[in-house]
Amino acid sequence: MFIAYVYHYQHDVSRIQSVNEDTSPFYGKPDEKYVMVTFQSGMDYWKRCLKGFEDAAEALNVSVEYRGATQYDVNEQVTVLEQVIARKPAGIAVSAINPTALTKTINKAVEEGIPVVLFDSNASGSKAFSFLGTNNYSAGVTAAHEMAKLLKNEGKVAIITSPHQLNHQERTRGFVETIYQKYPRMQVVAVKNGKGDAMASKQAAMEILKDYPDVQGIFATEANGGVGMAEAVKELNKKEIKLISFDTEKQTLDLVKGGVIAATLAQGTWNMGYWSLQFLFHLHHHLTSPSRSGDSPLPTYVDTGITVVTRENVDHFYAK
Amino acid sequence: MFIAYVYHYQHDVSRIQSVNEDTSPFYGKPDEKYVMVTFQSGMDYWKRCLKGFEDAAEALNVSVEYRGATQYDVNEQVTVLEQVIARKPAGIAVSAINPTALTKTINKAVEEGIPVVLFDSNASGSKAFSFLGTNNYSAGVTAAHEMAKLLKNEGKVAIITSPHQLNHQERTRGFVETIYQKYPRMQVVAVKNGKGDAMASKQAAMEILKDYPDVQGIFATEANGGVGMAEAVKELNKKEIKLISFDTEKQTLDLVKGGVIAATLAQGTWNMGYWSLQFLFHLHHHLTSPSRSGDSPLPTYVDTGITVVTRENVDHFYAK
Repeated sequence: MFIAYVYHYQHDVSRIQSVNEDTSPFYGKPDEKYVMVTFQSGMDYWKRCLKGFEDAAEALNVSVEYRGATQYDVNEQVTVLEQVIARKPAGIAVSAINPTALTKTINKAVEEGIPVVLFDSNASGSKAFSFLGTNNYSAGVTAAHEMAKLLKNEGKVAIITSPHQLNHQERTRGFVETIYQKYPRMQVVAVKNGKGDAMASKQAAMEILKDYPDVQGIFATEANGGVGMAEAVKELNKKEIKLISFDTEKQTLDLVKGGVIAATLAQGTWNMGYWSLQFLFHLHHHLTSPSRSGDSPLPTYVDTGITVVTRENVDHFYAK
Repeated sequence: MFIAYVYHYQHDVSRIQSVNEDTSPFYGKPDEKYVMVTFQSGMDYWKRCLKGFEDAAEALNVSVEYRGATQYDVNEQVTVLEQVIARKPAGIAVSAINPTALTKTINKAVEEGIPVVLFDSNASGSKAFSFLGTNNYSAGVTAAHEMAKLLKNEGKVAIITSPHQLNHQERTRGFVETIYQKYPRMQVVAVKNGKGDAMASKQAAMEILKDYPDVQGIFATEANGGVGMAEAVKELNKKEIKLISFDTEKQTLDLVKGGVIAATLAQGTWNMGYWSLQFLFHLHHHLTSPSRSGDSPLPTYVDTGITVVTRENVDHFYAK
């Protein structure tokens, strides 16, 4: 018995030495906490970002917490972020409600030595180490090519967007410039403000279809706009209009499945969350690029990609 | 004694259970080999890419191999890549000698189930899972702003580039468009082919300075161009001309240190190699985004960033 224990003991010591935390740098502590901070924190959209964040945390043996402004409220997000910083977490991934409002607070965190990355919505003037999100201009380009395919490269189209948000400005610009440069027999005749709201977007779509009765397609740059325009074409019984929406909320997927919305653009939300946590872990554990003065320790921008979702592949996009 | 061993044994078993290979997914096998494939494989430039690749491999407990075409030779790189594929490595990171020549070979690897990512130079039509490299348009924009700063927003400038390579076309376009759009008192008067060669670039710079004696700055989009134009201004004794080069070869750094070249742009080469290996490891071990049909398992593009190197910070950029 005694010899057996000794044997086991030595055998296991050698295993420990070759495989323990000191050998693998990708093994954190369960009390090492990383926080994801959003706004309108109850939105479905964040669920898959958080899933990626959680999956990375589980793999790296660390903990995560989800916080956010419950409303679309700048001051509320600043307050939440300040509360999170005060507890000195191992890292923070922030989706910024607008490009400037959080900059001072983000910089404070970085100056205190807390790693911060931005995901989904950037604050490009801040000291955050990286931004992980969709290339919104490219997403607009993809939407334009998809619309051209649906309309066989010909016809009038319109856009419903949120003109005060940078993301949406870029999606709009990618769409408009691509139609203008690549499809001479197509034309963008109207760009309307849907206010990120289904009711306002329905109203905007109704106006578009009244003012331009020959419009054959509408691109909504966000999900509520997609739902609103779908209601408008149903109410006006104009189901021949080709609709392209954004994101993969259940309501949007149901409309794609039902054939009302022809296509929607899925963002790489799992990758945003997963690689945000990987980057924060690398910063916290000093696993980034060996320091050179002024050098960026991490890639400055990660384009998490876009997937076109149509009736053919929509079933794969329902949350499991 | 006996009790002490029992105690240790149990204690260590619990440690093993929580910390062994089965728990951390970021622990490969030493015979799991990842290969980096380049062209002009002896160039200094690749060293820091390979260092990042090696650092990630060490952290993940896997092996790496470095292969490449020794010359700037398309067929040689295709042959090398085919040889690498035949040995079925765990993953391949390729820097493509041109945007199309390797596409068929890359696709063959992916179809055989070998993960492939591209770094530094893209082959965007291929089935590789991601591209990690510099945003060359942004690098050109950065060079333009730096040149404007050096010339106090006023004066004629020129470019020495390799007009047949996509990377260099984008650097040139970023520079030209920024000067045109942002600096009305500046003008790009010449864009010359330096052929990626110091002698040809010296000749190009001599011609520029003869044809446009009032040129005040030259931007070379690659390292040999930088060395060549530095020789031209030394020979003509025109050291007041502001030169901006690219990359951080020793010769370039020496010229920055000596004040002949005002600034050079450092690419995030360590990050290219490090995150290439991380991505390949994630693909090989199925640690990527839970599959949705058509979804990109990894971020499609990683911008590894640019750093401006001047006399102030040049010492940090010498290889250690």
